[in-house]
Amino acid sequence: MFLILGGNGYVGTAFQKHLQKLQLPFEVISRAVVDYSDETSLLRLFDQRRPEFLINAAGYTGRPNVDACEVHRTECLQGNAVLPGVIRSACEKAGLPWGHVSSGCIYTGAKPDGSGFTEADAPNFSFRQNNCSFYSGCKALGEELLSGAANCYVWRLRIPFNEFDGPRNYISKMMRYDCLLKATNSLSQLDEFASACVACWTKRVPFGVYNLTNPGSVTTEDVVAMIKRHGLVHKDFRFFDSEDQFMQLAAKTPRSNCVLDTTKAEQLKLPMRPIVESLEMAMRGWVKAR
Amino acid sequence: MFLILGGNGYVGTAFQKHLQKLQLPFEVISRAVVDYSDETSLLRLFDQRRPEFLINAAGYTGRPNVDACEVHRTECLQGNAVLPGVIRSACEKAGLPWGHVSSGCIYTGAKPDGSGFTEADAPNFSFRQNNCSFYSGCKALGEELLSGAANCYVWRLRIPFNEFDGPRNYISKMMRYDCLLKATNSLSQLDEFASACVACWTKRVPFGVYNLTNPGSVTTEDVVAMIKRHGLVHKDFRFFDSEDQFMQLAAKTPRSNCVLDTTKAEQLKLPMRPIVESLEMAMRGWVKAR
Repeated sequence: MFLILGGNGYVGTAFQKHLQKLQLPFEVISRAVVDYSDETSLLRLFDQRRPEFLINAAGYTGRPNVDACEVHRTECLQGNAVLPGVIRSACEKAGLPWGHVSSGCIYTGAKPDGSGFTEADAPNFSFRQNNCSFYSGCKALGEELLSGAANCYVWRLRIPFNEFDGPRNYISKMMRYDCLLKATNSLSQLDEFASACVACWTKRVPFGVYNLTNPGSVTTEDVVAMIKRHGLVHKDFRFFDSEDQFMQLAAKTPRSNCVLDTTKAEQLKLPMRPIVESLEMAMRGWVKAR
Repeated sequence: MFLILGGNGYVGTAFQKHLQKLQLPFEVISRAVVDYSDETSLLRLFDQRRPEFLINAAGYTGRPNVDACEVHRTECLQGNAVLPGVIRSACEKAGLPWGHVSSGCIYTGAKPDGSGFTEADAPNFSFRQNNCSFYSGCKALGEELLSGAANCYVWRLRIPFNEFDGPRNYISKMMRYDCLLKATNSLSQLDEFASACVACWTKRVPFGVYNLTNPGSVTTEDVVAMIKRHGLVHKDFRFFDSEDQFMQLAAKTPRSNCVLDTTKAEQLKLPMRPIVESLEMAMRGWVKAR
């Protein structure tokens, strides 16, 4: 049996859907019922439920976007850095294998030759570089707290999307923002991400960090061209002149725009399609929010 | 009535002693009775007790020294960064004025002219500089979470000592370590520190950050010379050749050695004696641990 912390969030729901599809039993643990930020409560829960694996899909992201984390710094630090540390400690004590939904947003840019960052590269968009949003800083600290953790997967998600229109979906965001920042990014098709995470455990791939973005990268302009081609929205897209202008007019804190290397996940045949293919599929099957 | 969180620790006990001396009523809140890391519990506590002022002397320091924080990173982050953020939020909601025991160990060195860092200088020994111990990083993050806090004092303590021999007392540590690192530091006589903190509130000095070290600074060699002169211990003191050797042989994480400027506190006549005077008094009245 799987336990999912944060199972009713945007990412957690994708895990639920995927486990249902695989007919694997799971239970969503809600914060209202179990205070999973507390190690003792977690250990009691493990003792009662005897899960085979735990998924931590809980975290603090900020609404409507990452700028909110600049204001809600305590919650952000608690949910993204301390919480994984607490879960690690409980899981190690209970001998329970688990996976943590981390973020690829702890990197900025790409390597000088244009290739992506691998799991062996240290985060370069973090408190330690003093160049990041509070959110990214907390996510990177969370990974520090997991370094050397036993029986633990660290799954890096980036800018999730799928075919369901909604406020957390990257494609929807692109369509709704007044003006866009030109950037190159690796992205994660959300359902493929959940599937790859679960596969880590069912295939018993080695514990450790995994970049779980779709192979490749796209520019904002690429995505806009696809949105237009699929006729998802009819409007003139506008772009900021520069990142400076974006920061001046639209953002409180810098965004991570980056390319990740997915060789490690690909070699283990974790199921993520090339990014353009997944974007095409999402737009072809687009389900508009009502 | 004052509430003291962490009131039974090394620093909290000094607050108790001082408030007793002033005949000011206080209550020590123990973690076993109230989970003060939880905002709702704090608000309930405030509602029941109706304090006029809250002192946060709780924090995670690591035993026997700061190296332990490299291992207990979750507790360190929770106790030194998240906790002040939670208390801030509760105090702001309740309109309760309060003070947080921070640390001067978020600086390293001194200014190019040898003078100390003022409250206006950004910490230079923190995650953002990527040069620090995990403890200092957490303490600096804790101050970030308090920036702009209403009705809040941030009191910076550094390397506490007084006349009572003990494992947390700087003078005792100097006497017990096999080998010492040569460095220049600002220090805080613990009881004067507690007195200065309480005076902030009783004198209603403006809320904000205060360096509450004794004016001036001393070198390790100065302190050793005083220890010898007062005959506190009879042994040959040895020194590391360099900070590199210290790091190689004795430490897991870099130490903050720094000089703080105390002009702000002095101008408000917060009661801290010149450092050499306070050290002399402590050694003259030295009370050996049994």
